[in-house]
Amino acid sequence: MTITTGADVREGPATVQGIPVAELARTYGTPLFVYDGDALAGRMRALREAFDERLQIFYSLKANPNIAVCALLHAHGARAEVSSMTELLTARRAGVAPEDILFLGPGKSRAELAACLDENIAAVVCESLQELAWIDELARERGVRAPVVLRVNPAFSIKGSGLTMGGKPRQFGMDEAQLLAEKGLVERYEHVHIRGVQVYMGTRILTEATIVRNTEQIFELAERLSATLGFALELVDIGGGLGVAYFDGEHDLDLTALAGDLNPVIARFADAHPGTRLVMELGRYLTAESGTYVVRVRYVKTSLGERFAVTDGGTHHHMAAVGIGSFVKRNFPLRLLSGSLDGTGPEPTEAWNVTGPLCTPNDTLAKKAQLPPLRPGDLLGVERSGAYGPTASPVHFLSHGYPAEVLVADGRAHLIREADRPDDLLRKQHLPAAAAFRRAATH
Amino acid sequence: MTITTGADVREGPATVQGIPVAELARTYGTPLFVYDGDALAGRMRALREAFDERLQIFYSLKANPNIAVCALLHAHGARAEVSSMTELLTARRAGVAPEDILFLGPGKSRAELAACLDENIAAVVCESLQELAWIDELARERGVRAPVVLRVNPAFSIKGSGLTMGGKPRQFGMDEAQLLAEKGLVERYEHVHIRGVQVYMGTRILTEATIVRNTEQIFELAERLSATLGFALELVDIGGGLGVAYFDGEHDLDLTALAGDLNPVIARFADAHPGTRLVMELGRYLTAESGTYVVRVRYVKTSLGERFAVTDGGTHHHMAAVGIGSFVKRNFPLRLLSGSLDGTGPEPTEAWNVTGPLCTPNDTLAKKAQLPPLRPGDLLGVERSGAYGPTASPVHFLSHGYPAEVLVADGRAHLIREADRPDDLLRKQHLPAAAAFRRAATH
Repeated sequence: MTITTGADVREGPATVQGIPVAELARTYGTPLFVYDGDALAGRMRALREAFDERLQIFYSLKANPNIAVCALLHAHGARAEVSSMTELLTARRAGVAPEDILFLGPGKSRAELAACLDENIAAVVCESLQELAWIDELARERGVRAPVVLRVNPAFSIKGSGLTMGGKPRQFGMDEAQLLAEKGLVERYEHVHIRGVQVYMGTRILTEATIVRNTEQIFELAERLSATLGFALELVDIGGGLGVAYFDGEHDLDLTALAGDLNPVIARFADAHPGTRLVMELGRYLTAESGTYVVRVRYVKTSLGERFAVTDGGTHHHMAAVGIGSFVKRNFPLRLLSGSLDGTGPEPTEAWNVTGPLCTPNDTLAKKAQLPPLRPGDLLGVERSGAYGPTASPVHFLSHGYPAEVLVADGRAHLIREADRPDDLLRKQHLPAAAAFRRAATH
Repeated sequence: MTITTGADVREGPATVQGIPVAELARTYGTPLFVYDGDALAGRMRALREAFDERLQIFYSLKANPNIAVCALLHAHGARAEVSSMTELLTARRAGVAPEDILFLGPGKSRAELAACLDENIAAVVCESLQELAWIDELARERGVRAPVVLRVNPAFSIKGSGLTMGGKPRQFGMDEAQLLAEKGLVERYEHVHIRGVQVYMGTRILTEATIVRNTEQIFELAERLSATLGFALELVDIGGGLGVAYFDGEHDLDLTALAGDLNPVIARFADAHPGTRLVMELGRYLTAESGTYVVRVRYVKTSLGERFAVTDGGTHHHMAAVGIGSFVKRNFPLRLLSGSLDGTGPEPTEAWNVTGPLCTPNDTLAKKAQLPPLRPGDLLGVERSGAYGPTASPVHFLSHGYPAEVLVADGRAHLIREADRPDDLLRKQHLPAAAAFRRAATH
């Protein structure tokens, strides 16, 4: 939990590391994403204490690419898994060493591949034979041997994840069977150095046994491929996909139980392959809990007997909470952060639809959420919002733009991303001379 | 249709107003949104020719807020319906006069309301009693009387739209029954001048009769409210929601047939209310057809027997085409724009999954689309993509950023929006001094 709310909202407004959220909202405006640096650090510490130390944690920047979030996680031992030029740049500027960076993604541009070689990162996670050929070409031009890890689309799949990746036709990686048939692969690309294997099995996994079984199968697959194709396993990336509970009925992973079952699997493999670097990629699991999306109620109203609180935040900053892309809208955890201090009582006694400023009924942060009576000016916090927030949302919708982000670290609030202003949204647009419209106008 | 493709792809590559798309792609890079100014102008011309001239077309900037698109439509007679400070600024900079601007939206900030008054726009479309009180207050401070139109959530609803708005509890407008009960409304807010009524019934309507019936009912509602509450109908905004066919089995509206049935309804009302300004809001209908999302194939591969073309574009620029938010993924119209010129034949003989560069299997522009054999370097065009493109998509996902936009007008290509570069995406981020992470690190 990031934000501490006093038992009685009227007397104890919410704080982060002792700083009232209401103060942050006043200083930086709303809507606002607030991240608790202690929560980010705590997550890394918990993982390092729980898991076999030979398992290295790579932070998947896609979950939250803010440079300060990346730098803080790195200060606590996280390395970096990136998927675009900007993410690569971010990781480097955040202080991550090239040898601690992996680059992954099914559609890498030649410029991105070239940057990987020029930066000399740990490895490109390669997703097709064509990509191998491109890397070979780029490496030859540079007179180097490019470190590569093969991404495999495994023949097996695992139940129990939010999104299953294995055993289906996919744009990701190479089918296991295809690879096993490529006997001369290692020799074919002279300027490519195949260092190992990566497999990503799924996302939002909340069952410990699924992660353990995934890892076992990935290790077996890595050994099969290494033996059949004849390359040494210098690096095995077991993916990640550790989930976070968002909805009623979901339960967070039990890290102690998970480690209890996973560590023997890791130890067995690590003992058998003492030189092999073992990588786990984590994004959502590292950042989700640290973040709160703070919105302010602008209007309250009723419509056909239902209560609506229209806030200044919604889909454009937090599409996941709104539920677009999900089959059924389910509410993220949502709390009143600043109660009305007039004694109306903070008990969650009313059902509220909490909506945003957009012109679509989908722009609904919560449907019939149990909340105390709400009034204009109230602050609400959508919790567990540190992952896949604004970067996974249509921030330009209705031209509202990117929200401000604040990281509380060392007991102090730091503005780590300014909100977009109208001029920011317009600065890369150009209006051609009116003459350009003449032909069209006179037609 | 925007892009003309020769019957034989091998001999006649696609062009816009005579300019080869391949040339645009080379000059401006891909992914790229290309808009055909003649198509935008043609749409406005067709509407003005078809509809009773007393019906004014207001362009809903949310469909495509690029200033050049707005200016071109305005040059052809479109006024502006806006929903944020940036959209208001855009419309003004595009040359739309204040008296031709309406501001709409359920969650307007006080700053936005103040700007509406200061710019002296035609009317604020007001969505709650609380908003009326705010406007009254702001107008009093300025010593003016603020023109306002009441947005009504009608008791009736209409089948036949992609998203129905009436007859349900909504964050939009005020329930008809609530308003009818507010007998003293007109007198209550001294600094508010109630000018009329707005109703928005739904979106993506493809049935002519639905639009006609909507309009009839809205006119009746406007007369009821005006008579009961005692204000003159200076402006009636009948909303819009005219759809565009995207998918197999859908048919575009027949504008001639629609006008044939709608014009008598408009004429009847206009004749009875000669001083009343009649407004239709259109977004998607004005811009969708004019735009093509041009992507380039980076990789081709097969996985478990299915063909994949991994392109440089996808969800982050065109979430609607990817189908996130829809129950079932259906393909937008998609064409090969530059065939491989090697004689492999342009006939659409193969089923292709066309995917993007993101790390999620959802990043799929087309599932099993019938296309000619594809090769790396091929250009594909997702058609009817001029509305709800990048502004309705998570452009920051994986930090790829906003794509370039080109408007072809007057037979010339104009870069109307530059693509984001890494430094653009990082420029508003701040990295606190390392000291800020110390406490967390030493914990």
